[in-house]
Amino acid sequence: MNDTIELLLRHRSIRAFTDAEVPEAHIHLAVQAGQAASTSSAVQAYSLVQVTRPEERRALVPLTGGQEKVATAPAFFVVCGDARRHRLICARAGAPYDARLEGFLLAVVDATLFAQNLVIAFESMGYGACYVGGLRNQLAEVDAILEFPAGVYPLYGLCVGIPAEAPIPRPRLPVSAVFSTDRVPEEVDVLADVDRYDEGYRAYMRERLGKDRAWSPSMARKFSEPRRVEVAAFFREKGADLT
Amino acid sequence: MNDTIELLLRHRSIRAFTDAEVPEAHIHLAVQAGQAASTSSAVQAYSLVQVTRPEERRALVPLTGGQEKVATAPAFFVVCGDARRHRLICARAGAPYDARLEGFLLAVVDATLFAQNLVIAFESMGYGACYVGGLRNQLAEVDAILEFPAGVYPLYGLCVGIPAEAPIPRPRLPVSAVFSTDRVPEEVDVLADVDRYDEGYRAYMRERLGKDRAWSPSMARKFSEPRRVEVAAFFREKGADLT
Repeated sequence: MNDTIELLLRHRSIRAFTDAEVPEAHIHLAVQAGQAASTSSAVQAYSLVQVTRPEERRALVPLTGGQEKVATAPAFFVVCGDARRHRLICARAGAPYDARLEGFLLAVVDATLFAQNLVIAFESMGYGACYVGGLRNQLAEVDAILEFPAGVYPLYGLCVGIPAEAPIPRPRLPVSAVFSTDRVPEEVDVLADVDRYDEGYRAYMRERLGKDRAWSPSMARKFSEPRRVEVAAFFREKGADLT
Repeated sequence: MNDTIELLLRHRSIRAFTDAEVPEAHIHLAVQAGQAASTSSAVQAYSLVQVTRPEERRALVPLTGGQEKVATAPAFFVVCGDARRHRLICARAGAPYDARLEGFLLAVVDATLFAQNLVIAFESMGYGACYVGGLRNQLAEVDAILEFPAGVYPLYGLCVGIPAEAPIPRPRLPVSAVFSTDRVPEEVDVLADVDRYDEGYRAYMRERLGKDRAWSPSMARKFSEPRRVEVAAFFREKGADLT
């Protein structure tokens, strides 16, 4: 155990913040820490946009599932996969740009390695953060506000600020469910781990929300109805070739 | 600045390792730190497989672009997006599983948040690591060895061990190229940043490899020829709906 691992283990998403601002110097340092993450062959296929205009942040609230913190958190960012730089470089060199699903995947992975370093850097400075996957609820409408050019793929939002809450951490699946040697676990073992996890999760939900809810029924609900079905069409519209 | 940010900024990919093993206790701690990362609505759509059989690791070398370290690093892992657990839960509940591109994206993002925490935890314990995107070069052949079931999407490899080299860090794009407020930068500013970066990158390549190479020409080459074109078909075969 060391301070960094303790920091990682202490993580919980923070959804309530004090009014304290996030100084530009802290943002720059966190961005540099983000950039220090691995990137596939140095492609650095990401961009980070801080949304500062109050009216735009307010307009994003209903588009991200009614998350007030998108308007009220001290800082709100959008993390994007970015293939535009490479497209511009190819165009200037008179070369075609042809990257298919692999190109999109590179951008999503690179952006997420960057984002997680960014979050850890913020957390190490005493901030709390919350990813906002709800940004993908209505991407076309989000895009109408923030005007992303072709090749830039908004992936999720990020709220950052000094925590004004100290929630208990949400339990995770047993290690045996997510880590194994040589082969992934057998189906029967996966389901046994799920049952075991449901018990602990139920206790967490009782304590946190006063509700009797296990994990697996919420997963069954979540994945049995298609959600965010316009996501693929949106990214294709922005130039991603998903073939 | 603090110890964690210093650790993040010190990162470089490590490709040469001492013979020291990576104890199981360290792996478990790193996995737990990985699991502590954010996960979209607690879906935890990832799995980590440590490949321990020497003959399988040897067989992976030609399939990942001839990277000897895949066979020789003290520990080699495969990071997977994992939708299988949710598919099994839905099947058991008699519910359909219907997740489209959004479901695949959730898995890639969740797996990568997990992986980056894992890497940082390893690095904080004195290990070095190197992501192996080359795992996607010939996914069907990799799959023939490691036998991933439907719903499990191998994304990249990860070599871990005590560093036996101390490479200079590869420079990154200027902060202004990847971070902006309210809108992404104008094209002309993107290309000016690229030119500025090419200078520094050229100096790095001269010092590191004794070669005169800028960044942008290598990006133009990389993205003008389709690479890993079977990736989409492979993930579809494994059950990913990319529509």
